[in-house]
Amino acid sequence: MTLDAVLSRIDTDLTGATDRLMELMRIQSISTDPDFAEHCQTAADWLVADLQSMGVDASKRPTPGHPMVIGHVDGDGPHLLFYGHYDVQPVDPLELWDRDPFDPELQETPAGTVIRGRGSSDDKGQLMTFVEACRAWKEVHGSLPCKITFFFEGEEESGSPSLIPFMKENADELRADVALICDTGMFESRVPSIVTMLRGLLGEEIHIKAADKDLHSGMYGGISMNPIRVLSKILAGLHDDTGRITVPGFYDGVTELPDDIRAQWQGLAFDHAAFLGDVDLSHPAGEQDRTPLEMIWSRPTCDVNGIWGGYTGNGFKTVLPSEAHAKVSFRLVGDQDPHAIRESFRAYVTEQLPPDVEATFTGHGTGQASVTETTDPKFEAARKALSDEWGISAAYVGCGGSIPIAGHFQEILDMTPMLIGFGRDDDQIHSPNEKYDLESFHKGIRSWARVLDAFCS
Amino acid sequence: MTLDAVLSRIDTDLTGATDRLMELMRIQSISTDPDFAEHCQTAADWLVADLQSMGVDASKRPTPGHPMVIGHVDGDGPHLLFYGHYDVQPVDPLELWDRDPFDPELQETPAGTVIRGRGSSDDKGQLMTFVEACRAWKEVHGSLPCKITFFFEGEEESGSPSLIPFMKENADELRADVALICDTGMFESRVPSIVTMLRGLLGEEIHIKAADKDLHSGMYGGISMNPIRVLSKILAGLHDDTGRITVPGFYDGVTELPDDIRAQWQGLAFDHAAFLGDVDLSHPAGEQDRTPLEMIWSRPTCDVNGIWGGYTGNGFKTVLPSEAHAKVSFRLVGDQDPHAIRESFRAYVTEQLPPDVEATFTGHGTGQASVTETTDPKFEAARKALSDEWGISAAYVGCGGSIPIAGHFQEILDMTPMLIGFGRDDDQIHSPNEKYDLESFHKGIRSWARVLDAFCS
Repeated sequence: MTLDAVLSRIDTDLTGATDRLMELMRIQSISTDPDFAEHCQTAADWLVADLQSMGVDASKRPTPGHPMVIGHVDGDGPHLLFYGHYDVQPVDPLELWDRDPFDPELQETPAGTVIRGRGSSDDKGQLMTFVEACRAWKEVHGSLPCKITFFFEGEEESGSPSLIPFMKENADELRADVALICDTGMFESRVPSIVTMLRGLLGEEIHIKAADKDLHSGMYGGISMNPIRVLSKILAGLHDDTGRITVPGFYDGVTELPDDIRAQWQGLAFDHAAFLGDVDLSHPAGEQDRTPLEMIWSRPTCDVNGIWGGYTGNGFKTVLPSEAHAKVSFRLVGDQDPHAIRESFRAYVTEQLPPDVEATFTGHGTGQASVTETTDPKFEAARKALSDEWGISAAYVGCGGSIPIAGHFQEILDMTPMLIGFGRDDDQIHSPNEKYDLESFHKGIRSWARVLDAFCS
Repeated sequence: MTLDAVLSRIDTDLTGATDRLMELMRIQSISTDPDFAEHCQTAADWLVADLQSMGVDASKRPTPGHPMVIGHVDGDGPHLLFYGHYDVQPVDPLELWDRDPFDPELQETPAGTVIRGRGSSDDKGQLMTFVEACRAWKEVHGSLPCKITFFFEGEEESGSPSLIPFMKENADELRADVALICDTGMFESRVPSIVTMLRGLLGEEIHIKAADKDLHSGMYGGISMNPIRVLSKILAGLHDDTGRITVPGFYDGVTELPDDIRAQWQGLAFDHAAFLGDVDLSHPAGEQDRTPLEMIWSRPTCDVNGIWGGYTGNGFKTVLPSEAHAKVSFRLVGDQDPHAIRESFRAYVTEQLPPDVEATFTGHGTGQASVTETTDPKFEAARKALSDEWGISAAYVGCGGSIPIAGHFQEILDMTPMLIGFGRDDDQIHSPNEKYDLESFHKGIRSWARVLDAFCS
């Protein structure tokens, strides 16, 4: 009855676990904005102290950016590594939040109790599911079930610039039998899932400049090139009428879906109408010859994530701006090379510039797409553990998001990544009013206890 | 020697006049931003007090927006009305100013002394040229030379929403023989000019909405329509490859330049390379079959004055935004109907929307283009006065800017507008580091003294 005692302890301590998560959520660890660097330090310190309170040999490890948190527990059986990230997305537009994003609370909703606040789902809540499972195990048994390494990052939401160097420098310390990663969701918010296919990411920022100062559109309008006009034309041309991306060479390395995966995905009977309906949309807007699941899991995409230029305040100003800017990201699949695409994209933009107009670029994070083999028997063991907890058969799925860490574990440490998470489609991660279902948190903790039991017993 | 005494008084009192202008410039009368409404009241109060100090029967007159300032002085001879505006443009981007925009100072530059600060040229400095000419006249002669009405507005930079109703309600009080308007510049910064052709203006704000909330581009990217993509495509299509505007019916009412005006403009030998070179441009970017002077004076234009959507802060955020926005303005000529173009533009945008995407609009100010006849002998008298002051033959010119007030004087009050101003191309009105040459201010005051003398002697 080893497992039952742990599960029971988890049930009893749910309020304590929720309180601890909220304590972590109150720390404003936005990694992408330098103004919040101190808060990232605070979050790392909090995690070190929490791990130490469980007897873990934990420490904060400096990087050129935000620190890593590493913890070790020795033991018999397999060596598991668990990865999560303590940094969160920015919170703007702040006026769309119903409450302070960093003052979390439990809220009753028609769909059940939720933990509301920035990081509740991505990724503090998910990270803590594993920590709380370990805490319960330790409290029941006095020790953890096997050798475990905890690895928490603070730069995931800003492209993980320190991650690869850190993994390379600390490869011997980090290498384990499997890398458990909790930063994904459940298929259609109900099927517990192990993600085996992840899209990569490439971020670029374009700066278009025409005149050397803002001009008055009455005096200069008509004779002077408007950089917003130039930028709009470039962005408008990124997709053709069928939804294909027009950057030369962009589709190099994109592979077609194997027949068995295609068949399995058809079996999932994805309800894209409901998926889109949840956010008040109805028409799949990607490549028109692809299925909706392909659009989000196995096809590359291009999106403008931000655009700005000229006067954007109240009222009107007849300015002809000097500059216009956009943030553009690409989701990548298969063997697409993010570096080659970056070069091609920059050349593509530059070639379209009219006379007098310059473009400069700021590169943001890159990550290659990854596909995981499921031959290790731990995959079937984990799938059974998840199925037992949730009462529904767990699935191997794709994920449209980019979790470059998965590929790094494969390439740098030769470890198999196993992505298990309990997020739901309506968690509003990266958006105002982010939440994590209390059920996801509770059953997530229980799921990890079952996985530990399955791996280590 | 009447005039000489006044000119001499102007020369003697230049420091006093500059101090008074700077006092007015310190008032942050930004009309387009509701946060600055109190400052507009303060500026109006300042002007009322200043006019009263000269014996003018002046008062602040409420409107639904910012107040008007009206002043009357009785006298013989012609009845002149002088119009100026005391409101100024917003000051962002603030970081591009070399000093506080509302803390003006005299600065020495290679081109001479300038008065630096918001409103120095547009329009507080220009407005005060006429006021100071009157002050000098009054101090020398004890009274003004003829019947004068002062009419100062505080909403010019935000589309003058209260102007037409105010003119209609107070038509009998405002009607005079001629409307002197000081809100324009000198041709190529050196030729004193009377503007007889003005472009009209239409402002529109577009709001594009797709999903009902911001989404994560990993989860939704590819399957969900991105409103920035939609907006970019619409804006990119506003001009065809030859620079023509594509909104249906846009060119209805656009007239070709009469041969005599075309010949006169050719005589001006406009140095468009220098005009563009001043702002680090070299290629005329408007309709490719038009001359540069046509592009800025007699052809209609379309410019995006501002664009925003998604994440625009530091770093990167893989958000798929719910909304995207743009401010678009059109400069109009001839008999183009701004209301018809507004309707056509909205239909044009709406027709291009893909499924799931909505557009809403906020209308901003409109003003019809205007062309003034110069048959009234006052025009030649004013042209001679300007030529005498500046030592160079003054010209009748066009102006790319929109000063709808000119058309309103014609249409509502049946008055002839006469636009005389002393701005220079490098005044950076509507931009950071706005300035007004001290020479413009000084000789501008002297010019008005000469005009008063020519009209009233």
